[in-house]
Amino acid sequence: MAGIVVFVCMRTIQWVNDSVRIIDQTRLPHETVFVALTDVGAVVDAIQRLAVRGAPAIGVAGALGVALAIDAADRRGADDNAIIADAQLVRHARPTAVNLAWAVDRVLAALPMGRAAARATALAMVDEDVAINAQLSRRGAALVTELVGRDRDLRVHTHCNAGSLACVEWGTALGVVRALHSEGRITLVVADETRPLLQGSRLTAWELTEIGVDYRIVTDGAGPSIIARGLVDAVIVGADRVAANGDVVNKIGTFPLAMAAARAGIPFVVAAPESTIDLATDSGSDIEIEFRDEKEVLSLNGSTIAPEGATAWNPAFDVTPADLVTALVTERRTLRIDRGERP
Amino acid sequence: MAGIVVFVCMRTIQWVNDSVRIIDQTRLPHETVFVALTDVGAVVDAIQRLAVRGAPAIGVAGALGVALAIDAADRRGADDNAIIADAQLVRHARPTAVNLAWAVDRVLAALPMGRAAARATALAMVDEDVAINAQLSRRGAALVTELVGRDRDLRVHTHCNAGSLACVEWGTALGVVRALHSEGRITLVVADETRPLLQGSRLTAWELTEIGVDYRIVTDGAGPSIIARGLVDAVIVGADRVAANGDVVNKIGTFPLAMAAARAGIPFVVAAPESTIDLATDSGSDIEIEFRDEKEVLSLNGSTIAPEGATAWNPAFDVTPADLVTALVTERRTLRIDRGERP
Repeated sequence: MAGIVVFVCMRTIQWVNDSVRIIDQTRLPHETVFVALTDVGAVVDAIQRLAVRGAPAIGVAGALGVALAIDAADRRGADDNAIIADAQLVRHARPTAVNLAWAVDRVLAALPMGRAAARATALAMVDEDVAINAQLSRRGAALVTELVGRDRDLRVHTHCNAGSLACVEWGTALGVVRALHSEGRITLVVADETRPLLQGSRLTAWELTEIGVDYRIVTDGAGPSIIARGLVDAVIVGADRVAANGDVVNKIGTFPLAMAAARAGIPFVVAAPESTIDLATDSGSDIEIEFRDEKEVLSLNGSTIAPEGATAWNPAFDVTPADLVTALVTERRTLRIDRGERP
Repeated sequence: MAGIVVFVCMRTIQWVNDSVRIIDQTRLPHETVFVALTDVGAVVDAIQRLAVRGAPAIGVAGALGVALAIDAADRRGADDNAIIADAQLVRHARPTAVNLAWAVDRVLAALPMGRAAARATALAMVDEDVAINAQLSRRGAALVTELVGRDRDLRVHTHCNAGSLACVEWGTALGVVRALHSEGRITLVVADETRPLLQGSRLTAWELTEIGVDYRIVTDGAGPSIIARGLVDAVIVGADRVAANGDVVNKIGTFPLAMAAARAGIPFVVAAPESTIDLATDSGSDIEIEFRDEKEVLSLNGSTIAPEGATAWNPAFDVTPADLVTALVTERRTLRIDRGERP
């Protein structure tokens, strides 16, 4: 056993000097740049250009965006309708992750109790996200240990970035990895690069380097065959929305890993906060999948890949049907989707 | 019906002025550059750096490489052992596609009949590849029409590049697309970009633009969900090797498409010449999968993607198990793998 590992984990979203301070994820891994978002427009822009991304993170950023709207209304002497209008801009910045709408609605729900109460609700969500992540990470680590067995070292496959960058500080899927690593149990993480925006090779690799876990990046096309070859023991991913029937919407490229895990007979575990569960949506096919600009696919690092005139489809998420999911772990419960348990 | 469509199809490999003339595929789609390979070393290098790639194409290039070895031996007054030694260098330039070894061995098998006979065998393989492609393309088009039904337009999903660039002139999987398009039946082709070297967005997109078929590029992670959403009617891919049990080795990222096609209940068709079939190999797990330089994954267009010190796995191929394959089409026969037919 490696003993206790101490993580130096920075907060990727903070409320500082009456503004929202985020790490600009588009500049990683080459530059670590923090930017201050001082109004609602800046928050919407940061969410849309993925300067802040990851379902829990955009939830917290959205809540803090409403806090900015409250402060702006105070300064201008505007009524609550101005706050509500601003909040709707934030709420609709991106369509797929339910956490964004959930977080904005939660702050607005406190507004009848007064602006101070609503503002406090928003600011409290920063610490709350950290606490939630820690709880679900411990729960997820226990589950993976139970599923794979305590007697062997663990090789884990993950997709996109569900780490501290996707949340406030700790992470969901990578939070589970952190928790398992703190027990000295992780020997290897396989991380899909996650085209088009390379959250895997840019962000997850950056976090795994910080954590000090051995890892290999693979192309998204390679992930499923890595699983089929028996090179990993479990797949752990985050989620952007979980439907009532257990279908999981997550970053594009998750579904192929789930198919491969099912064929290989290894666990496919989803780690996400309760706020990701959308009981109002029956199944994955009812969820709007964001299609982003085709330029993200047709170019890379500013240079064009494809021939002139080429066109692309760029869905940002896919649906993993519940029959491919072993379990869903939240901060409150572990649902064995494979045994028929549903949120 | 769109009537007869005339294709302007160039030869991507030719024997010109006693040298091998290839289009340098690493420079596409931005530059169309032909290079002359004048000795065996240049042929090996072109195969290894993927200036010429695609199982049938490297087979033909390999055969012509042995023709260069024969000419060199003639000039130097060397005996046949020099030719055989050179041929072995060509034969082992890349490990996975069986066509390369098959083509080299075929030229060497003619050597006992004299150098002129061996040389003629090599040169004849250029025209032969074109004829084989045309036959299997027609056969594949007929099969896809039978599988999907004649009453509907076709939307086809393909991976990597199994077009004229992967062969001499016509293509295997894209040959089938060309044949279907000549009947006016194709409404859309979905092409995976095919990381790390982007043969889909660079080469297949370039060919589809030339053919004049409407197409969309998608990331490799998106392919399976495009199939799950019902946006395509059939998947058609090439192959680098087919084992005796029907397992198919093809470009990394093929296996996820096959899983998605099986779940969606649409045909997964493999189009490849007889020379791709390796009866000496029982199953896909017996085939050596080439692992290429991790730099291909960690960088793109010369710029580094991942953090300093990051490491990657870069398998160039994956294995699609026979139970996911609907049919294998060659120039001679159509094997319904899904009905238990085996090569």
